[in-house]
Amino acid sequence: MERKPVGIEAIFNPRSVAVVGASDNPRKLGSHVMKSLTQGGYPGKIFPINPGKDEILGIKTYPSLLHVPEEVDLSIIVLPAEQVPQTIKECKEKGIYGIILITAGFKEIEDKRGEALQREIKDLSDQFGIKIIGPNTFGVVNLRLPLNASFTPEFSWVEKGGISFISQSGGMSHLMAFLSMKSQVGFSKIIGLGNRCNVDFADMVEYLNEDPETEVIAMYLEGIDHPRRLMEVAERAKGEKPIIAYKVGQSLTSDMASQFHTGSLAGKHKIYEGAFKKAGVLTVESSEELLDAAKALAICPLPEGNNVAVLSGQAGPGMAACDVCETEGLSLSPFSPEVQKRIEELLPPLAIRTNPVDMGPAWYDSGAIKGIVRAVLEDRNIDAIILCIMFASANRAAVGTLSDLLLQGGKDKPVICCLSSPAGIWDEEIKRLERSGIPNYPTPERAAKTLANLLRYKKIVEKKE
Amino acid sequence: MERKPVGIEAIFNPRSVAVVGASDNPRKLGSHVMKSLTQGGYPGKIFPINPGKDEILGIKTYPSLLHVPEEVDLSIIVLPAEQVPQTIKECKEKGIYGIILITAGFKEIEDKRGEALQREIKDLSDQFGIKIIGPNTFGVVNLRLPLNASFTPEFSWVEKGGISFISQSGGMSHLMAFLSMKSQVGFSKIIGLGNRCNVDFADMVEYLNEDPETEVIAMYLEGIDHPRRLMEVAERAKGEKPIIAYKVGQSLTSDMASQFHTGSLAGKHKIYEGAFKKAGVLTVESSEELLDAAKALAICPLPEGNNVAVLSGQAGPGMAACDVCETEGLSLSPFSPEVQKRIEELLPPLAIRTNPVDMGPAWYDSGAIKGIVRAVLEDRNIDAIILCIMFASANRAAVGTLSDLLLQGGKDKPVICCLSSPAGIWDEEIKRLERSGIPNYPTPERAAKTLANLLRYKKIVEKKE
Repeated sequence: MERKPVGIEAIFNPRSVAVVGASDNPRKLGSHVMKSLTQGGYPGKIFPINPGKDEILGIKTYPSLLHVPEEVDLSIIVLPAEQVPQTIKECKEKGIYGIILITAGFKEIEDKRGEALQREIKDLSDQFGIKIIGPNTFGVVNLRLPLNASFTPEFSWVEKGGISFISQSGGMSHLMAFLSMKSQVGFSKIIGLGNRCNVDFADMVEYLNEDPETEVIAMYLEGIDHPRRLMEVAERAKGEKPIIAYKVGQSLTSDMASQFHTGSLAGKHKIYEGAFKKAGVLTVESSEELLDAAKALAICPLPEGNNVAVLSGQAGPGMAACDVCETEGLSLSPFSPEVQKRIEELLPPLAIRTNPVDMGPAWYDSGAIKGIVRAVLEDRNIDAIILCIMFASANRAAVGTLSDLLLQGGKDKPVICCLSSPAGIWDEEIKRLERSGIPNYPTPERAAKTLANLLRYKKIVEKKE
Repeated sequence: MERKPVGIEAIFNPRSVAVVGASDNPRKLGSHVMKSLTQGGYPGKIFPINPGKDEILGIKTYPSLLHVPEEVDLSIIVLPAEQVPQTIKECKEKGIYGIILITAGFKEIEDKRGEALQREIKDLSDQFGIKIIGPNTFGVVNLRLPLNASFTPEFSWVEKGGISFISQSGGMSHLMAFLSMKSQVGFSKIIGLGNRCNVDFADMVEYLNEDPETEVIAMYLEGIDHPRRLMEVAERAKGEKPIIAYKVGQSLTSDMASQFHTGSLAGKHKIYEGAFKKAGVLTVESSEELLDAAKALAICPLPEGNNVAVLSGQAGPGMAACDVCETEGLSLSPFSPEVQKRIEELLPPLAIRTNPVDMGPAWYDSGAIKGIVRAVLEDRNIDAIILCIMFASANRAAVGTLSDLLLQGGKDKPVICCLSSPAGIWDEEIKRLERSGIPNYPTPERAAKTLANLLRYKKIVEKKE
């Protein structure tokens, strides 16, 4: 990138980064930020700023921003709160228009001075045209650059992918990152908004909707300062890129409710839900559901309709998936007559051969299982498939046998899997499937719930719900 | 054990096992069963039965049960269905009173001959006083002996613990085993009931309620043949040992509904729920919830009341836990004045210091975090604690610092955790906590839901709900 990036672009794709308050003392956040940048493989130049040091982690260190002899695009600030206004002025002087302000001690503290300080830095940065992520944030991660501009080097262990996560909470960002590591979900950007002094959810949604490296926007929200603007921005993005919201703090939703002039706490939550739905935003009820839905929306095609086939290597997990389908309004529709006939030819009369199909009796006959899955993939009566196979020594080859077929068929029709084995047995096959549009979930219930969310999203966007 | 075990005892604690239909051909289930027994470390004698072999896996093989020169306690049968009646007669002749009948092709098949065959083997075994697990089962695992009498050697990888799982579905048993491997949940017995020819849920609950190696009984059910008997047995066990039920197949609940003379499908599900509650059985809605609740009930004390404290290393995950508490009717009660005062002394005025407590600002001060947790553990206004800490480089020591305190305090008061880190960082500390009564969950929502289930169980047993 040759041209100087400004504003939010400077925050995600800087050519060079200064760490104001860099340190080599592991009891200081400035040392963790330095580790994140260096261990995370940031390709640009790093300028530690600390008047008491000549070098940190072997990198030449400057007494102030103004001493840096080269251009700086992004400034990560980890100084005590009261020193921040002066640093923002130096950023302006140095021509830096992107700041990640990790420092806490602003609006979130009981002391009124915190609020005053936040007003001061907001006024300064608005006046200077500087964009600030924070204060009171763990930082920002752009896994694609890669840039780990956070105080947690371990964010660099997250897999690259299409989900961008905007969070009001650093803790929730860490949780999502760790959950994703256990399930091979890939992220593009992880953003801790912190106190949102002049960059809010709406700004982020606007930016990420244009970001070619973001497939899905996932949000964790507590309160929202400017709910109407967020809904407007989301509505403009509607149909272009899926947006998912997990909103907690049912007792703290006074912000929006007051704008809409309304009553009870539960009622306030309902208002959010309604507003999100209108804006084309899928709402979910837990951190796990957020990640599950984001993964599927990032890699799967949307189902054309709600006719679902449940294909199961064993009856029980298939029934558990069917129960969720029933609760969620998905329809276990009959196969077309040709497909039903084909399945009856392939399966011995030992099990359920209509939808849901118990493929158990064909365990030793990978040709039969392939034939069933192929027939259902091609069945025009079926819009989506839930495939559940639990490992047993006798069916070890099942996933490998099916994967090419799934990879091909899953391009037109969502195939949501619960393929479960002890660690180390099907992991590589599952990774291969997930990399190519076939998401896998740890339980049949979560697989079915995720398919229901895909369909709910489609209906919200098409205004059918 | 010197005396010959009979009936169900012969199935779980046999001194010797015969495998009728043993094989060394990996395309035969008989070979997988042989592997399960040998690789699983079964300490008793194994007698493979196969008229065409002299030895299998290096173990002397006999042409029939009657050729075995020593006493046999348990017979695992993997022969084709039509040969099973003759084998049962030979079991009787050989003095074997426990059978695990893996063979499929009985009541579950469309062909009427399957049902007739099942009636025949039921009549024979009832007449002979033989107990049969199955037919159409993956088998039985007793991790304590250890005995892996299943066709899946990998069941032996499951950690030993206090949960016994009775399942109508082999697939669901495999799923639970694999899920448990990911979360360090320990099992005592895993039992696939299959077609339940003469051993049903009620027999198992009766047996496991007396089993000193079982702390919690978890069940997965589809239909129930004798629901009244199950409820009676469960009611007799009420208060002695927690029983949890996950019932699927809302469209298949005609069995019980017909006994209670009732109507709609949803209504049938409600009847089950009501009957289980009356019998002191906790019902859950998913495989994950079943495992989560079983783990806590196996290792935690029950809360005295519903006053919960949420202590969180970061605000967001704590708020997510609070939302679930609110939905589930748990009360985030004020601390006693002394405890509140203590917390205010320990925490800087940077964050929420009332319940829920955001301990974030004390990250670098492990003494302060310890002080807060200790004060709340001792607070008589608080019946249970939800503790959420997300790893960051700066708080790496947090879990280690707290663990001795938690291990001591968690004996009187349930402490349910969501401690989350990338793999390999807090794993050992979390294992240590889980081994000693402090369960950990992957998300704050699941931790809170589990605490709600502990309290729901307590109320059900005390007939307060």
